[in-house]
Amino acid sequence: MVEDGAEGLAELSSELFAHTGRAYTVGVTGSPGVGKSTLAGALVAHARRRELSVAVLAVDPTSPFSGGALLGDRLRMQEHATDPGVFIRSMATRGHLGGMALAAPEAIRVLDAAGMDLVIVETVGVGQAEVEVAAATDTTLVVVSPGWGDAIQVAKAGILEVADVFVVNKADRDGAAAAVRDLEQMIRMGPPLDWTPPVVSTSATTGMGIEELWDAMVRHRRHEEATGGLDERRRERLLREVAALAGERIRGLVRRRLDADRTLVDDLVSRRRDPLTAAAALVASVTSAADVASAHDGGGGP
Amino acid sequence: MVEDGAEGLAELSSELFAHTGRAYTVGVTGSPGVGKSTLAGALVAHARRRELSVAVLAVDPTSPFSGGALLGDRLRMQEHATDPGVFIRSMATRGHLGGMALAAPEAIRVLDAAGMDLVIVETVGVGQAEVEVAAATDTTLVVVSPGWGDAIQVAKAGILEVADVFVVNKADRDGAAAAVRDLEQMIRMGPPLDWTPPVVSTSATTGMGIEELWDAMVRHRRHEEATGGLDERRRERLLREVAALAGERIRGLVRRRLDADRTLVDDLVSRRRDPLTAAAALVASVTSAADVASAHDGGGGP
Repeated sequence: MVEDGAEGLAELSSELFAHTGRAYTVGVTGSPGVGKSTLAGALVAHARRRELSVAVLAVDPTSPFSGGALLGDRLRMQEHATDPGVFIRSMATRGHLGGMALAAPEAIRVLDAAGMDLVIVETVGVGQAEVEVAAATDTTLVVVSPGWGDAIQVAKAGILEVADVFVVNKADRDGAAAAVRDLEQMIRMGPPLDWTPPVVSTSATTGMGIEELWDAMVRHRRHEEATGGLDERRRERLLREVAALAGERIRGLVRRRLDADRTLVDDLVSRRRDPLTAAAALVASVTSAADVASAHDGGGGP
Repeated sequence: MVEDGAEGLAELSSELFAHTGRAYTVGVTGSPGVGKSTLAGALVAHARRRELSVAVLAVDPTSPFSGGALLGDRLRMQEHATDPGVFIRSMATRGHLGGMALAAPEAIRVLDAAGMDLVIVETVGVGQAEVEVAAATDTTLVVVSPGWGDAIQVAKAGILEVADVFVVNKADRDGAAAAVRDLEQMIRMGPPLDWTPPVVSTSATTGMGIEELWDAMVRHRRHEEATGGLDERRRERLLREVAALAGERIRGLVRRRLDADRTLVDDLVSRRRDPLTAAAALVASVTSAADVASAHDGGGGP
């Protein structure tokens, strides 16, 4: 229902909401090929040994969880297929709710309300929207691997800022120590932070370092709880989501209004009216159309 | 001014708009490491031999054009640094106009109005927003390289649909023929298209295949002109941009309204009111506030 934006979603969402807020959410992001899915799988196994239920939400088009993977990857994730304490779901990157950025938080709440102790959200760490989805969690892991161009690429891709914990995966390969050193130096050279992201080396395929990664995640969680950062983070996340949902609804309204306005369209196409001016006119038109919006949403002003 | 959303941009944009529509825009997208920037550089050299002026707009955080690259990459692009017929500009992925998806079309128009014959837009082909920026051009090149996991990855990343021409770059490497074959098979197995994207092999560093690529681009351009597809494409692009610009303006309005509404925020944080319901209330509230919007935009309804 969340993926399709099905009818009845609003009612369901409304009923579920009171039962959410218990799950611990962890984002996993990084470039294609660094081993995010294998790492998520290793975290699932670790959580299960501690008798925690766990869900993985893969919104990464390059993830083996999202289908189309080689047989080996598929088998690896099937390891948990018969375990009722594990739920793995891939989401298309273009949801009907207006993109994954809007669908993902709702999907996470469904898993949260279902009683999952841990919800892992895996996204590819290259796109702006994709990184933001992984960052909208309680603890965000940024994964690199020695072969990937290392720290410089992380800095350029803008995923440095969202990391609560850095993971150098495939740490049995050449260059792992250098990658750790580069990341640590980059953190030192950056602005002083309330929480300094630790750099953990793992080899997800062998399980090496997963215990240390888990400990780092727990430390971050405790720090956030102690400082009030967790509440602040969840509050800001919620406000941003509501603003985005409202914006998306209005965007649809705007597009319908635009398509219906032949004069405005003709003026644009013939270059008599530029996009910014046309947008301003549209905004003025839509924001005065109280009747249209109310009829669509059935909601009243607060 | 476009990048910073500077004051006076609206007036400038309005004046420039009548002088746009002459440049041929080409998008270049694909995974990190496939050689997009080198390919863009080779196309620049080719265009210059034909005495066409050319601009490159790099909105790719992994592009050497966007800075932070190794010295070799930097030198390669500096080749055109003193040529007045070439303009290369990197854009931060988070513009002040509300993200690169909104800033890029405006930047392209500035280059168009400046008289550039060809505008090449390079984006990384992994993020949803990033792919859309490269796709919002007259001809979109999707670049793969033999080492990259090939066709399957392209299909999964959702960049198959946006390709007007496929480029297998680094074609002097092992696996290039297989990559071409995979792509051609994928195109055959897909839905029948008005234009079937050709698959061109190149080696951007040696210049191999650049002539063929240029010819494929010209063929696509002529096809689009002959069928009216170019006008249709540009029109749809413009309408989508105006709707997005209007949506972004309203999103700011919504966020300010939300932040000011203590009751709504408290209800959200205490889980008495769910995000979808809160968003609906906000939409109703904002769309009835004609006075606020008009005061901000100074525009009247059409």
